[in-house]
Amino acid sequence: MSDVLDLTCELISRPSVTPDDAGCQALVAARLARAGFAIESMRFGEVDNLWATHGQGAPVLVLLGHTDVVPPGPREAWTTDPFAPEIRDGVLYGRGAADMKSGVAAFVVAAERFVAAHPDHAGTLALLLTSDEEGDAIDGVRRVARTFEARGTRIDWCITGEPSSTRTLGDLLRVGRRGSLSATLTVRGVQGHVAYPDQARNPIHLAAPALAELVARRWDEGFESFPPTSLQVSNIAAGTGAGNVIPGTATVQFNLRYTPHWDAPRLEAEVAALLDRHALDYAIAWHRSGEPFYTPEGPLRAAAREVLAAFAGAPPEESTGGGTSDARFIAPLGAQCIEIGPVNASIHQVDEHVRVEDLEALPELFLQLVERLLAPPAAA
Amino acid sequence: MSDVLDLTCELISRPSVTPDDAGCQALVAARLARAGFAIESMRFGEVDNLWATHGQGAPVLVLLGHTDVVPPGPREAWTTDPFAPEIRDGVLYGRGAADMKSGVAAFVVAAERFVAAHPDHAGTLALLLTSDEEGDAIDGVRRVARTFEARGTRIDWCITGEPSSTRTLGDLLRVGRRGSLSATLTVRGVQGHVAYPDQARNPIHLAAPALAELVARRWDEGFESFPPTSLQVSNIAAGTGAGNVIPGTATVQFNLRYTPHWDAPRLEAEVAALLDRHALDYAIAWHRSGEPFYTPEGPLRAAAREVLAAFAGAPPEESTGGGTSDARFIAPLGAQCIEIGPVNASIHQVDEHVRVEDLEALPELFLQLVERLLAPPAAA
Repeated sequence: MSDVLDLTCELISRPSVTPDDAGCQALVAARLARAGFAIESMRFGEVDNLWATHGQGAPVLVLLGHTDVVPPGPREAWTTDPFAPEIRDGVLYGRGAADMKSGVAAFVVAAERFVAAHPDHAGTLALLLTSDEEGDAIDGVRRVARTFEARGTRIDWCITGEPSSTRTLGDLLRVGRRGSLSATLTVRGVQGHVAYPDQARNPIHLAAPALAELVARRWDEGFESFPPTSLQVSNIAAGTGAGNVIPGTATVQFNLRYTPHWDAPRLEAEVAALLDRHALDYAIAWHRSGEPFYTPEGPLRAAAREVLAAFAGAPPEESTGGGTSDARFIAPLGAQCIEIGPVNASIHQVDEHVRVEDLEALPELFLQLVERLLAPPAAA
Repeated sequence: MSDVLDLTCELISRPSVTPDDAGCQALVAARLARAGFAIESMRFGEVDNLWATHGQGAPVLVLLGHTDVVPPGPREAWTTDPFAPEIRDGVLYGRGAADMKSGVAAFVVAAERFVAAHPDHAGTLALLLTSDEEGDAIDGVRRVARTFEARGTRIDWCITGEPSSTRTLGDLLRVGRRGSLSATLTVRGVQGHVAYPDQARNPIHLAAPALAELVARRWDEGFESFPPTSLQVSNIAAGTGAGNVIPGTATVQFNLRYTPHWDAPRLEAEVAALLDRHALDYAIAWHRSGEPFYTPEGPLRAAAREVLAAFAGAPPEESTGGGTSDARFIAPLGAQCIEIGPVNASIHQVDEHVRVEDLEALPELFLQLVERLLAPPAAA
C-alpha cells in the first residue's frame, strides 16, 4: 500500500464528524514534526486547528485543508461501514475519501518529500488544517485568520485541497468562490385539528406558494467564470407527528450561493420582499458565511495551470463554481487562492469514494506545484 | 346525588385509557342484566366490546358509545386528578366527563327507565359499547360490525352519544360525517451538496409547486349540510439537519375530510394525477379511515329534531361537521345514524368537564327519543 493511500485510510478510520477532529491532526502533526516542521496547535472551543510551517519569510505558501467530515447518515444506506475504508475495484470508499482526507494525506506526503528534497527552499511552506470546515466554521479558519491578522502573519498564496475536479483529476482549477448566505425561516400559523381547518391556520399551506416562488426564482445568469446564483432548501420541518393536528409553525432552512453580482444585504432584502408579498407571518434568521472572492491571473494561477495541464494532458477549466471553502477567510488577508483536488462527484453522499489511481497521483501534483513556487529551477 | 351523576362518576373513576376498558363495561353489563337485557361480551385483542339487547326483531335501535378515554396528559396540568371526578360550581370535572362517560351513563339510565315503563316495547333496544374508539379502532366497532354482517344482525337506527352540542345541550344534531383519508407522500430526489445543485435533484424544490397546487385546490363547495372537502397537511419533513446538504427525499403527510361528493378511490386518483402532472418521482401510501355517511330526512332524524327542539327551546342545527365517529362502521350496515350529546368544548383537553344540569337532563332526552321510536303513543 502506498504511503498516501495508507495515510488516507488511517484518517478515514477516525470518525471525525464536525467539529470532532478524532485524532487526525495529531497524526499529521507527528509526521510533519518528524519532517522538520514547526507545529502550532490552536484549539478554539470544540475545534482543533493545526498550523505547521517549514522555512521562513516570504513568500508564504499555505496548503489549506480540513480533517472534519459531514455525517454519514444511516449506516444501512452505505455498502460498507463509512468509517472502515475499503478498496473495491481500484476505488477507495469511506466518508471523507474525497472531501477531503485524500487531499490532507496528499498534502502531508508532498510536504515531506518537498522539504526532504529542498531543505533550504525559498520562503515558507505551511499546512493549515481545521476540524470545522463543514459546520459553523466559527472557531475554524475564520478564527485562525483573525489570529493571523492580529499577529501580522502574511500569506501570499493559498492552495486548498478540496475536491474540485469534475471528471478526471486536474480537469478543473478553482480560481474563486461564490458567496454563501444561509437562512432559517419560521412561518407562523395557528395550531388546530385537521377536522376543523376554519379554526386553525396551516403554516405549511401558507408557506407553500411562497416556497414555490422562492425555489423557482432565477437570480442571475452567472458572472465571468462564476456559475449562476443558486438557492437550495436544505431542511424543512413542520408537524407534531400526529396525523390529525395542523401544526402551529413551519421551519425552512435554505442556502444561497451567489456571484459577485450580489452581496448578502441585497439578497436578504430580496427574499424578505418576496415573503412580504405573500403576506406571511414569519421570522427569519440570516447567517452570512462569506462574501464571494476571485483570484485573477497571476503567478499562482499560472503555475497551477501549467502543472495541471502537464498532468491531465489538457489545460484545466478555470472555474469559480462549487461551494464555499475556507479560502474565503484566507483571501481577505491579501492572499491569492486556488483550489485543486480529486473528483467531487460523490462528496456528502453515501458510498463517498476516490479513485486510488487519482489519490496516488495527488502528492506528485502538489509537489510539482510547491516546487514551482518555492524552489524554481533558477533558485535551485 | 342523582343516578346518572353517580354512574358517570363511577365510570370516570375507572382510568380506561384506550384500549383498556378498566371494568367500565362490567359495571354497565351488571346493571343492564338486572334490567332484563341479554348481555354479550365480545373481546377482540385488547379491546372490550359490549352488546346488550332488550326485546326482539325489527326495528332495531342501537345506542352506540365508548368507554375508553384519551390520555389525560401530565397530572399537574389538571386542577384536580383527572380520574377522581369532582364537582365545582355545578360542573363535573374528569377525563371522560364529556367524551363520553356522561353519554354512556345517560344511555344506561334511559334504557333502564324505558324497559321498566315499556316492558313489551316494539322491536329491539340495544346498547353497543367499545373500549377502542379513540385509538386504532381496529378491534372495536369496526370488528363488531363485521361480526354483525357475518351473522345477519340488522340495525335500523343508531344514536351515538358523542359530545356534539356546541354551546347548550341539544343545539346540534349530527346527521352525517365527512369521510377521512390520509396519505404519506414521499418525493424522491438525489442527495447532494447545496453548492453543486446540478449534481443533485432537490426533492423540496420538486415538490414545492405540486404542494402549492395541492393545498390551493378547492375540492367542492360542500354538500347539503356538509362543509367543503378539505385537505390539510399535518407533517412535512426533509433534510439531514445539515445546512449544506440537499436531501434525498421529502415526506409529506396529509389528511382529507370529504363530503359524499367524493369517495376514497376517486380522491386518490385525483391526487395521483396532480402529482403526475408535476412529473414527480414519488411513492404514496394511503390510509382510508372511513367513507362519509349521511342520514337524510326520515323517522329517526325527525324524532330527534322534535325532542331536541322541545329540550333546547329551538330547533337544533343539523350538521355533518366534526371528526369521525364509530357511526362510520354502523352506517354501512344500512342503518340511519345520528349523534347527540353534551357540549364538546372541553373534549381531549385538560380539565374536561360537563355541566351537571346538562348531564342530569341527558337520560330524559334519550328516553323521549327511544319512546318515540320504540313505544309511540299509537303502539303504547
